[in-house]
Amino acid sequence: MLGLDPDPSALWTATDDEPAPGGEPRERAARAVVSHCRAAIDATAPACVGVKLQLARFELLGAPGWGALEAVAAHAREHGLLVIADGKRGDIDVSARAYAGALFDGAQTPFGELPGLGADLATVNPLMGVDSLEPFVSAARAAGAGVLVLVRTSNPGARDIEDVPVQGGGALWQLIASIVDDLAAGGVGESGLSDVGAVVGATAPDHVRRARELMARSPFLLPGIGAQGGRVEELAAAFAPGRAAGLVTASRSIVGAYLTTGGEPAGAARAEAERLREAAWTLSIEAAANVR
Amino acid sequence: MLGLDPDPSALWTATDDEPAPGGEPRERAARAVVSHCRAAIDATAPACVGVKLQLARFELLGAPGWGALEAVAAHAREHGLLVIADGKRGDIDVSARAYAGALFDGAQTPFGELPGLGADLATVNPLMGVDSLEPFVSAARAAGAGVLVLVRTSNPGARDIEDVPVQGGGALWQLIASIVDDLAAGGVGESGLSDVGAVVGATAPDHVRRARELMARSPFLLPGIGAQGGRVEELAAAFAPGRAAGLVTASRSIVGAYLTTGGEPAGAARAEAERLREAAWTLSIEAAANVR
Repeated sequence: MLGLDPDPSALWTATDDEPAPGGEPRERAARAVVSHCRAAIDATAPACVGVKLQLARFELLGAPGWGALEAVAAHAREHGLLVIADGKRGDIDVSARAYAGALFDGAQTPFGELPGLGADLATVNPLMGVDSLEPFVSAARAAGAGVLVLVRTSNPGARDIEDVPVQGGGALWQLIASIVDDLAAGGVGESGLSDVGAVVGATAPDHVRRARELMARSPFLLPGIGAQGGRVEELAAAFAPGRAAGLVTASRSIVGAYLTTGGEPAGAARAEAERLREAAWTLSIEAAANVR
Repeated sequence: MLGLDPDPSALWTATDDEPAPGGEPRERAARAVVSHCRAAIDATAPACVGVKLQLARFELLGAPGWGALEAVAAHAREHGLLVIADGKRGDIDVSARAYAGALFDGAQTPFGELPGLGADLATVNPLMGVDSLEPFVSAARAAGAGVLVLVRTSNPGARDIEDVPVQGGGALWQLIASIVDDLAAGGVGESGLSDVGAVVGATAPDHVRRARELMARSPFLLPGIGAQGGRVEELAAAFAPGRAAGLVTASRSIVGAYLTTGGEPAGAARAEAERLREAAWTLSIEAAANVR
């Protein structure tokens, strides 16, 4: 998974390379972001199964940013890649339905059909409870897409709330995992994997193992590789249900690989994406062998 | 607080009233949403201190939706109203900074200065911990704005995670309240109120009382009045620190008042907003008297 988290001050395309300068700063930044993301996709597509688009970076660009998000998603689809909308949305029912429409398949209105982003997967925040998740799950299911619920994230602050011990035993994230497993039961496909998955940070391998025990049918999105310190070699448990059960995602360590290795950004990104793919592949084969 | 949660199929302005028909459905819907929201603001501004904009509804309209959001926020400011961006964002540090830039004061980039929405307050989701909240708090503080952390929401699903008893006593939301109170300590203004506030659903008055004990300096945003069943008369505790300490917000019960009372939408909305304002006002005076 190529994570695209485009920082306007660290793009491959320098400001002066812009094909069509002019326009307000947000429009110029959005054009440069699209060109950067397209180049990163072109460089790494053969080594990736999808892209994870960090919505915050696009939102900072206002209306031109939403256009950029759509253009990047379309480019990824042309390469046959999955599109993960990483927005971590969560809200009460009517609002969750609107978010789900925006990210998956749009909405019918008196003004005509509004298109959605057409994401294959979207990250969602479970704090507000099951009724805030269900509209995302229904909309995803209707669109042939899926959701990835935040269970145990990769940042140090995960300890403040997600790791809090709850009465009856276990940490809060384990209770969230059991909610995810319940939701996942309703959407298990022929592959044995559900359309309700989980975000489980790659920075805490012990948690990945325990999470896999609690959510046997859910695909895991595993962020935190590279810049945040996680190592793909430690994530075998994620792949236990099959090769597609673990989605290893890295953003800065792929797109910014040239900063440490030197050389051309595209070549360095491709090499790092290949390295991660091979590590995940080897791991998933070993995990499958252990299951047998 | 006028909650603006514009459903494209329930706008005051009917499709055929559009001043400039044509364009793609999202553009037409966005124009109609702006015209609806402006009319609702014009009708209720004298009875409100601000507007709460539900970002999900604007996001469903894509790029034209972000333009609509900016136009509605600008219109509210022209009326001297506070603008609350209700997006419930929450993410790791770099992403939280991007969201905060989008909602508060923008960002400096090699392409020039990107404007932010200029919100006075933004709702944020604390699940990922203190390091996911701090970038919002810093950005808000630098912009003279504030954040409203989800503590105990108004939806039934709040019981699934927020109400879970944690080891050491109390519910998870009370632990979140203590995190909010710590963050609030760093930003207490001359009024005695902090720039770090809390979202506390008006649907559970007992929780409002307990939340006020745990967060003495935080303004409370109190959603759930009206359509979700909350009653303003039961919220006295929220106002204990002063009249500005409780921000009662209602969306569908104001904008949709005409559906139950009959008559013209604008007049019915104005009457309902006045009724809520008077109830909150009376309550805040009584609360202040009890404190003395």
